[in-house]
Amino acid sequence: MRDKYEMQLRKLHAEMIEMGTMIEQAIETAIKALVAQDTELAKKAIEADDAIDHQEREIENLCLKLFLTQQPVAGDMRNISAALKMITDMERIGDHASDISELTLCMAGTPYIKKLEHIQQMAKETIVMLVSSIEAYVNADEKKAKSVIEHDDVVDDLFDKVKNELITMIHENSDDGEQACDLLMVAKYLERIGDHATNISEWVLFSITGEHID
Amino acid sequence: MRDKYEMQLRKLHAEMIEMGTMIEQAIETAIKALVAQDTELAKKAIEADDAIDHQEREIENLCLKLFLTQQPVAGDMRNISAALKMITDMERIGDHASDISELTLCMAGTPYIKKLEHIQQMAKETIVMLVSSIEAYVNADEKKAKSVIEHDDVVDDLFDKVKNELITMIHENSDDGEQACDLLMVAKYLERIGDHATNISEWVLFSITGEHID
Repeated sequence: MRDKYEMQLRKLHAEMIEMGTMIEQAIETAIKALVAQDTELAKKAIEADDAIDHQEREIENLCLKLFLTQQPVAGDMRNISAALKMITDMERIGDHASDISELTLCMAGTPYIKKLEHIQQMAKETIVMLVSSIEAYVNADEKKAKSVIEHDDVVDDLFDKVKNELITMIHENSDDGEQACDLLMVAKYLERIGDHATNISEWVLFSITGEHID
Repeated sequence: MRDKYEMQLRKLHAEMIEMGTMIEQAIETAIKALVAQDTELAKKAIEADDAIDHQEREIENLCLKLFLTQQPVAGDMRNISAALKMITDMERIGDHASDISELTLCMAGTPYIKKLEHIQQMAKETIVMLVSSIEAYVNADEKKAKSVIEHDDVVDDLFDKVKNELITMIHENSDDGEQACDLLMVAKYLERIGDHATNISEWVLFSITGEHID
């Protein structure tokens, strides 16, 4: 009985890693399509969101099965509950990657009014946060989960940088306004991805310590 | 057998209407909290999103039960498939209502730089679209579904109006930039809600005619 349970828990962790990888790839693909103004790739990124939704369902079913057949207690109970909460945030990260690609489709064909380096940097930082939070979950690494939460400031600072830059551009030339708004939205979605990665790490901490930070 | 089936289909429709109502209320509450800068109400609006997610799961289970136990064919098959697709868009509308409330929390305490009338109008129009698409689904009303899809132009025009107004404001005074960005995002979320209502009606048309417009 215990063996089967351990096996199912390991399967849960493997599926969580898989969903994490899917989301990292979704962010990467969305940013690649954005930078290259590649509409075909953007469409692929939008379609890929279905697979992420599907993976969320798979994990949900696995968690419910664990609850029903194994009646876990204390630590294990929290570990499974945390997974159920984490996948909601993970699914929304997938949504935002898809949202970014929708904006890519809108902007395609018009040269960018600014370099996208900070936006690319935001994407990189959120991926680091995401990878770390999944690792923190699987290895019950409290320190790593806390570092993710602290790291969100880096993403927020980058967002402020992009926002102020775009505000200045619109202030100086309102002709840039249309695209500036779209780029602002891209940055906002990345900032939200950072928020969701933070939420994920808060659930990881809950799964380890039993306390939920808000 | 057929009686039980009819009963389950009616239950599905009732649950769809229920989820529709939940989402309409979510939009209404989010906009009310925004306009009044009511942070308590905004927090309630964010929490209410969990109930919407739960309702999505309920409907999903009901659809799967219908598939498995009744093995529906042709029209009924499409009707249930459409419901499964519609709830994904409905869930995202709930997310956006919650996103708007997050922005309300950011902006609270600072007087608005502009009247919110167009934003309120956008909310009203999206609610009309939403109510009509659910009615079109339940009554298999092709004409109504088509009218929703056409109505999305009204929301898009309002979004352009808000966007251009905000661009002009930032252009004239970059001090307004911070809040202008937040308001822009609110309008963007409403515009996305309109897109999702359009998707819902496209699925309604599919459920009636068997053809999917993209």
